[in-house]
Amino acid sequence: MTAPRVDGIDAVLSPHSIAIVGASVDPARIGGRPIRYYKQTGFAGALYPINPNRSEIQGLKAYASLADVPDGLDCVVVAVPPELALPTIEQAAAKGARGAVVFTANYAEAGPEGVLRQQELVAAARAKGMRLLGPNCLGVYNASSGHAATFGSFLEGERAPDAPIGIIGQSGAYASYIYVLLKKRGLGAARWLATGNEADITVADAIGHMAGDDGVKVIAAYVEGVKDGPAFLGALGMARAAGKPVVLIKVGRSESGAAAAMSHTASLAGDDQVFDAVVRQMGGYRARTTEELIDVVEALARRGPLAGNRLGVLTISGGAGVLMADDAENAGLVLPVMPAATQARLKAENPLGSFVNPVDFTAQAMNDLGLVGRALRAILEDGDVDAVAGFFMTWIASPVMGEKLQGVIAEAMQGYEDRTIALAVSAPDEVLSAYRAKGIILNEDPSRVVATLGALAAIGKALKAGGRSAIDLTGTPRLTGAETTEAAAKAFLVKAGLEALPEQVARTPEDVTATALAFGGPVALKIASADIAHKSDAGGVALNVAPDDAGARARVMIQAVSAAHPQARIDGVLVGPMAGEGVELIVAARTDPVFGPVVMVGLGGLFVEVMQDVVFRAAPIGEAEALAMIDSLKGRALLDGLRGRPKVDVAAAAAALAALSRVAAANAGRFDTIEINPLLVRAKGAVMLDALVTPGSG
Amino acid sequence: MTAPRVDGIDAVLSPHSIAIVGASVDPARIGGRPIRYYKQTGFAGALYPINPNRSEIQGLKAYASLADVPDGLDCVVVAVPPELALPTIEQAAAKGARGAVVFTANYAEAGPEGVLRQQELVAAARAKGMRLLGPNCLGVYNASSGHAATFGSFLEGERAPDAPIGIIGQSGAYASYIYVLLKKRGLGAARWLATGNEADITVADAIGHMAGDDGVKVIAAYVEGVKDGPAFLGALGMARAAGKPVVLIKVGRSESGAAAAMSHTASLAGDDQVFDAVVRQMGGYRARTTEELIDVVEALARRGPLAGNRLGVLTISGGAGVLMADDAENAGLVLPVMPAATQARLKAENPLGSFVNPVDFTAQAMNDLGLVGRALRAILEDGDVDAVAGFFMTWIASPVMGEKLQGVIAEAMQGYEDRTIALAVSAPDEVLSAYRAKGIILNEDPSRVVATLGALAAIGKALKAGGRSAIDLTGTPRLTGAETTEAAAKAFLVKAGLEALPEQVARTPEDVTATALAFGGPVALKIASADIAHKSDAGGVALNVAPDDAGARARVMIQAVSAAHPQARIDGVLVGPMAGEGVELIVAARTDPVFGPVVMVGLGGLFVEVMQDVVFRAAPIGEAEALAMIDSLKGRALLDGLRGRPKVDVAAAAAALAALSRVAAANAGRFDTIEINPLLVRAKGAVMLDALVTPGSG
Repeated sequence: MTAPRVDGIDAVLSPHSIAIVGASVDPARIGGRPIRYYKQTGFAGALYPINPNRSEIQGLKAYASLADVPDGLDCVVVAVPPELALPTIEQAAAKGARGAVVFTANYAEAGPEGVLRQQELVAAARAKGMRLLGPNCLGVYNASSGHAATFGSFLEGERAPDAPIGIIGQSGAYASYIYVLLKKRGLGAARWLATGNEADITVADAIGHMAGDDGVKVIAAYVEGVKDGPAFLGALGMARAAGKPVVLIKVGRSESGAAAAMSHTASLAGDDQVFDAVVRQMGGYRARTTEELIDVVEALARRGPLAGNRLGVLTISGGAGVLMADDAENAGLVLPVMPAATQARLKAENPLGSFVNPVDFTAQAMNDLGLVGRALRAILEDGDVDAVAGFFMTWIASPVMGEKLQGVIAEAMQGYEDRTIALAVSAPDEVLSAYRAKGIILNEDPSRVVATLGALAAIGKALKAGGRSAIDLTGTPRLTGAETTEAAAKAFLVKAGLEALPEQVARTPEDVTATALAFGGPVALKIASADIAHKSDAGGVALNVAPDDAGARARVMIQAVSAAHPQARIDGVLVGPMAGEGVELIVAARTDPVFGPVVMVGLGGLFVEVMQDVVFRAAPIGEAEALAMIDSLKGRALLDGLRGRPKVDVAAAAAALAALSRVAAANAGRFDTIEINPLLVRAKGAVMLDALVTPGSG
Repeated sequence: MTAPRVDGIDAVLSPHSIAIVGASVDPARIGGRPIRYYKQTGFAGALYPINPNRSEIQGLKAYASLADVPDGLDCVVVAVPPELALPTIEQAAAKGARGAVVFTANYAEAGPEGVLRQQELVAAARAKGMRLLGPNCLGVYNASSGHAATFGSFLEGERAPDAPIGIIGQSGAYASYIYVLLKKRGLGAARWLATGNEADITVADAIGHMAGDDGVKVIAAYVEGVKDGPAFLGALGMARAAGKPVVLIKVGRSESGAAAAMSHTASLAGDDQVFDAVVRQMGGYRARTTEELIDVVEALARRGPLAGNRLGVLTISGGAGVLMADDAENAGLVLPVMPAATQARLKAENPLGSFVNPVDFTAQAMNDLGLVGRALRAILEDGDVDAVAGFFMTWIASPVMGEKLQGVIAEAMQGYEDRTIALAVSAPDEVLSAYRAKGIILNEDPSRVVATLGALAAIGKALKAGGRSAIDLTGTPRLTGAETTEAAAKAFLVKAGLEALPEQVARTPEDVTATALAFGGPVALKIASADIAHKSDAGGVALNVAPDDAGARARVMIQAVSAAHPQARIDGVLVGPMAGEGVELIVAARTDPVFGPVVMVGLGGLFVEVMQDVVFRAAPIGEAEALAMIDSLKGRALLDGLRGRPKVDVAAAAAALAALSRVAAANAGRFDTIEINPLLVRAKGAVMLDALVTPGSG
């Protein structure tokens, strides 16, 4: 699998006729709940409860078996004991159903035998082109049609107004909770789907499907582990192409994290960091907490992403303004200064206020709410902002001011419907609802107000960045398996466009001297052996060696390495000129077990080891993206020349990183790691001082 | 000022008789609101509205002037125009009042003239030993007595049950908001106080007072800027000594941040980082967001700090368990593994569940809530935990299970009332209230549930750590002002117990040679001049110089430095042996304009400059605290020997840092910075390779 499979998911998500096998007369039981929910949602399609012992179930005509239901069955809901599930799928397939929702548990989650039963189940479905949700899943819900093939309790209680949100969860319990929390904000998600064991339909498939579903504008997904990385990234790409933000929450580490610990590069960061990087690269937004997910999904559903990152802050209290300005910096938002003339105008009528941005209209506004309206209007008209964050405390619920304030705000916003207003307030639900109905974002916490706007800006930027541009891999060299030595690895990478120093392998100490003399200055000596990965540790590196001295040093080195590694085959000594000054990076590619070829960059030496200051992307990337990776290093300033050091050629480093990413993409499966450590970035150019290719284990 | 002034605050916070000058018949106006609130709270003391034009105000007898009220007046509330405030204070003082609450604005916040008026006001109060709250403040509230000298709207609406929480805010608006948000959680703060312009009573004074107030167990404070650092730290110390947690939120940077940018050390971190460090050092807890403040204060009020950091996680859903386990790691909590026998027992009755910790009782519990109770009971009995975090979604509000679940949980908790239970749930307010009444902590977000428990554990640890042990400064040398050169600075610090290499200043190149030959090996040469702060940059450092060569190198060095700095007075060249291998730290002290002498440690060279990996503490500290500082560096692993490097003498580094902290404390005011950069930590010992003292500017 390498792409999301979206074909046929309609039969599961939007069927017109449904049979429920294992239907129960008890509306509280697993087989009874969906029927109760279908009646509650007013599903207009055909619903066939199947139960051999009943002629009627919850007021509906019941059928003894699937064979008895009318033709044209779209979807079957499987709520039977494990031993009956496979025959049910086979009968449904025979009846022509194209979709199955399997509640039944005791499959892959129950151990090796369950895995086998699950494989049989999905094979039976696939044999007839049927898509299968589950097994061991909580089902599916489509608010548009009232299709409610679920026993999740999230459908209990009153219905919230439909909102264009699609919820997808590997965990049905957590996905239910997301639904409930959004409903509490007055948003009834349009689609809901729990993938359970993912025998067939995965989170990626569902994201891909919703990318093309007009009823969904925002996708919220809960992910426990991704098995097929490329399909997952493909699904994010489809959503981005459709202009639909995907907000994810992912727990734990990917299941293959342990497998990746073999190489040095891999051990620098857990797979979770790779997940983080590639999701961002594909325009997805990863929420850290449940409330962040809810805040951001709500704001996207009500308002959509922001056009830019310019924020106006409007408060009752100067202190809260500083707090929100602090938060804005963390959230990547900027506060444009209000034009002087506007400031002067506002100051004239409200002398104790402050109008630079943050704008503090002070408690003076208690006596004249017009001060609030005019300040907000001024920010919208003259403030050059994409959004306004306000600190309004309990004012919106005040018996004295509340209603009037609502009018004042609505009036100030007229003509600026494209700007997003978010307020920190505490008020009873009915007051909150009135503001939300006007598209205003509300939160008790001023910091969360600002963080949510920051997320909307980041998502807007990610969606605008568009898809990854196609990167031409023509001419990128292919690994042959012969790149087992430093010299061979470098030679291969030079063909791919990276730079190396002019170096030669000398076989004997005498050759070393001759080669060093030919270079004409101090040289670097390195043991040439495919069997020594960490040359320094083995005594296999000597720097700044005078040419006259080179032969003797080489002899000692060969002896030392042989003594330490008696099994190592030594080809001789690599002789090259000294590299000169510069900043060392580590630039590497590896085959991530989930996401395939990824590239990494970090500052060399101790920075990468001690500070774990590394950045990942899925390969390939262009030079602009490579530059963005380098720019996002915490130690980025080192490349600009600190304390009298020279500024180095960052563009050359980005070019090398991009070239390596093409090598990685063109050689997927042929390598475990390709590590250039260090890449010396000089005032002009960036040269590999060491390179190591570990062949693919697959 | 160097200590909080708590004497006399009772007259402001707990008076028995109060006069309100500027009392209004309009219960919505500033001078009318307090009277309405006093009537609402049922204040039992004497209340005297003062208004020359009225004989009755809101049903109370009014007085024409302060002179007319009965004797024994405790406190005056000043709600008059600015020009009448000073005479009011004078009249109140004449009447014997010991406290004043000044609502009146237009003082220091309004510019230089306001500053002068404010000084007059406070001088008039102090002349008669009267404590003054404000001016420009929102007042004070004491729930125990019903003392409600405030016009803040936070007292509107129904009253929540009293809770032993003291709220203190420099911003009345923000402090009001804290009150409202806590009230929404069912907690009515016992004390509330807004300090406004802090002409007399500061946040520190109020914290110090509440440390001794039996009605307060938890202190929540909002801070914009601290003017008197030692008093602030003293107040935190009083609260810690009384076993009362202080939860702070602070915005922006302290007002003196800019002044600190002059020295290299100071520029490494803003004053906010110092605030952060010293607050933690004194056992305070700094919340980052409003909701974090509310969560932690609520949990402290209901439960108090945790005895340890061992967490049990109990969930409906495996995924949520992983999420909460991830969060626990971030929050500094550990998840002990459940004993195997207990696991086996639980597994026997619930085969699809998981009982290691996190404990996942699965949706199976829908059919048998006893599974929940027995799992919770098992964690409490056998799990070795201080707290349990649960993910219960909407179950507690379920019409079918809700009531039964409440009973099941209560039964499981019996006998384990010392453990704290916190649940992630969504439910209507009345259900939440029922759980809260049992001391259970609730939050919609599972991540916040865990973060709150992490805060309770951190606070428990900080309170247990006790106060700073007295550190003996006897014998710590005093700066004389003569420590202007590297040699003199090192000699001074050697007297204080730090180590230096045996070095000598040689006046002439010939002396340099002679000195170098006497050392007998390669030497380090450094220009000796009080006028050159950064010797390397000036060409004033040469390392690994052969003794024979030393004179010639010294000559070149002197010429180069003279050429670059023609004005510099050069004393000669400092000659010393090479220091050998080790890890470089930067160890420094500085006089923080707010908090006085502080010490700092960071990893040397590029780490400190690029990564800002530095840690601060108020001086003096002991060696254990110094070790804790070093241990908290992100790059700590460097000291343990990485990639074949030697492990270095961390204890010696800690001893040097502690010694420097004693120097800093004993010489408060006499220096701006003392910087040891680098301190070379070797396999045995830690030597200063450079030292620089910048004398105090005050």
